[in-house]
Amino acid sequence: MGMNVKEKSLKLHREKHGTIEVVGTMPLRNGDDLAVAYTPGVAGPCLEIAKDEEKAYEYTIKGKTVAVVTNGTAVLGLGNIGPAAGLPVVEGKALLLKRFANVNAIPICVDSTDPDDIVNTIKNIAPGFGGIHLEDIKAPECFYIEDKLKEELDIPIYHDDQHGTAIAVLAGLYNALKIVNKDISDIKVVINGAGASGIATAKLLISAGVKNIVLCDINGIVYEGDNCLNEPQKQIAKVTNRGLEKGTLKDAMKNADVFIGVSAGNVVTGEMVEGMNKDSIIFALANPIPEIMPEEAKKAGAKVIATGRSDFPNQINNVLVFPGIFKGALSVRAKEICDEMKIAAAKGLANLVKKDELNEEYIIPSVFNRNVCDAVSKAVIDVAQKNNKFTA
Amino acid sequence: MGMNVKEKSLKLHREKHGTIEVVGTMPLRNGDDLAVAYTPGVAGPCLEIAKDEEKAYEYTIKGKTVAVVTNGTAVLGLGNIGPAAGLPVVEGKALLLKRFANVNAIPICVDSTDPDDIVNTIKNIAPGFGGIHLEDIKAPECFYIEDKLKEELDIPIYHDDQHGTAIAVLAGLYNALKIVNKDISDIKVVINGAGASGIATAKLLISAGVKNIVLCDINGIVYEGDNCLNEPQKQIAKVTNRGLEKGTLKDAMKNADVFIGVSAGNVVTGEMVEGMNKDSIIFALANPIPEIMPEEAKKAGAKVIATGRSDFPNQINNVLVFPGIFKGALSVRAKEICDEMKIAAAKGLANLVKKDELNEEYIIPSVFNRNVCDAVSKAVIDVAQKNNKFTA
Repeated sequence: MGMNVKEKSLKLHREKHGTIEVVGTMPLRNGDDLAVAYTPGVAGPCLEIAKDEEKAYEYTIKGKTVAVVTNGTAVLGLGNIGPAAGLPVVEGKALLLKRFANVNAIPICVDSTDPDDIVNTIKNIAPGFGGIHLEDIKAPECFYIEDKLKEELDIPIYHDDQHGTAIAVLAGLYNALKIVNKDISDIKVVINGAGASGIATAKLLISAGVKNIVLCDINGIVYEGDNCLNEPQKQIAKVTNRGLEKGTLKDAMKNADVFIGVSAGNVVTGEMVEGMNKDSIIFALANPIPEIMPEEAKKAGAKVIATGRSDFPNQINNVLVFPGIFKGALSVRAKEICDEMKIAAAKGLANLVKKDELNEEYIIPSVFNRNVCDAVSKAVIDVAQKNNKFTA
Repeated sequence: MGMNVKEKSLKLHREKHGTIEVVGTMPLRNGDDLAVAYTPGVAGPCLEIAKDEEKAYEYTIKGKTVAVVTNGTAVLGLGNIGPAAGLPVVEGKALLLKRFANVNAIPICVDSTDPDDIVNTIKNIAPGFGGIHLEDIKAPECFYIEDKLKEELDIPIYHDDQHGTAIAVLAGLYNALKIVNKDISDIKVVINGAGASGIATAKLLISAGVKNIVLCDINGIVYEGDNCLNEPQKQIAKVTNRGLEKGTLKDAMKNADVFIGVSAGNVVTGEMVEGMNKDSIIFALANPIPEIMPEEAKKAGAKVIATGRSDFPNQINNVLVFPGIFKGALSVRAKEICDEMKIAAAKGLANLVKKDELNEEYIIPSVFNRNVCDAVSKAVIDVAQKNNKFTA
């Protein structure tokens, strides 16, 4: 019997001492090399940057490097396990950024749960980075932290739990809608999970033209006026569920066209899927146990089913998104990742599935499809150049 | 005509986009690899660390990685040029740490000049690092920052401008004293420069047994009771210059055995060297122009002369020290770099020059001597193990 994947992971992380290492780009064979790579030659780049900070993109790692930052408060499905325990995940992200986008990423664990303290810390270390990838920071703090950093810094700030999910979902949705032949402006979408990814997905779907979204959380349907909501939930409640539906997830799913689960396993039954409109679309993205297993959803009438898992068809995974986002953003020194870029990235991803290949079991390309990173990065670059949101 | 070293450095930094890059240690060829390196397998290391934080040394980069942190307030001889302009130097340090000690180092530029804010920022990002290498932070703030971080964190904190200089100087001094046949407890040492490296050197020389040290700064001799001193200078004034000498650098150098310059070029004349005791030792470490040129010091009667430059004999350079310090500290998970380790490191370095090779022009090994890093690292390890100041 072989080891399971967790045991294999423990063994490999121990053997390799983590997922990344730092290597030099310059030779250091003798005093001449030392004089060029370090003192006295290094005074050259220092003085150029002192005169014009933008030159840091030219002479240092800044233009090719992002920080992947967590405080360990919402790690995978494991919850608040602290900054040190969150390190393997941000290291993993750094590994993926290098592998898929040739972006250099530095894992940073922030030992703080105070949003202003986290903002200040990231702001303080920002000069050495061309972008900030936020990761596994719990809601609702993650929204405040991202918004503040966007205000304070002129490098792209990107919370993957929010935007990676939102973009990958939108990409899958574009193709699923082609299969069921429904228009994005006509559908009712139910999103279960009103945390980072649920709220961000709702926001992006609205930008993309979805008119009727009902968010649910553990207490049922999210509606304007509910006093149990936190601030970001209150904000999203103002622009979703305009029919002011109340009740359970089951109530919400009645006559819905699309269900998007970014919540917990086994919370959707076949009966709930049966209550949806014909040709329903189910994205059951909870990991490792989806909200409903694909075969059960199928049996209950769902037409297109996606999960977060690699062992089922249609894996909707952030890995499809963030490498290309940062590759594109760094290449044009984009100052931000705007909604237009996110929508363009989703379309770019969706269009990698050719018309004649598109079917219920193939709505989204594989993370190992070689064109994925460039499709996303090209979308970011095109929008940046069109809007002149770059400095290069 | 070839390019000068600054032009070569600009060209190389631009071509390579800085001195380092991040590479992956794990394969990512397919879904199985992804499951082991990232989700779901990575939950294994996360949970192990959540149970016992010390396991971060085993499963992550922490145990092989240090942060090289500057705020750009005292960069080389260039002064306060800001965090972004300080990046090439901390990148260079990262390159050297990898090349000479196989330590992975992450350059971090902190955009703050407030000591408490800097301490808080470094403390906040510490969980991902096995040590903190402080660099190019101006005095007197550097002393407060290092002391506070030592109190707050249980990983080694090491300000290279202070301790790298102090240890390399002490190593050179041990061998120079063998040549002139003087005892360390009998000599009078004048140190010119009462900033980070001058004060740290004074402290370490006292720990090593020097009884009579006179520090000078731009206002002349530093003495207890002088109201112009900052706090760290006041502290060092209590344990140096017990004869309460006052006056100029020239006055201080009268009847001194050793001059150590960590100040500015061309501040020492032949006449001042002539006033020193017989067989005087001159360490003129200002870069790129020494306090006095070696040939002039020689003519004035100096017996042993060292500089910070690679184009003269006896180069006293921090590169001799910091790679081995961190290699040793990480290998035993030392919680601090104590004075005993620093003295042992200096002795280790000095002893690399064999008795029959030792002469006025060879008191310190070359930075490219292959045994340098291990001599320093072994010293750190031996002391840590003797004092049980480690957890591995």
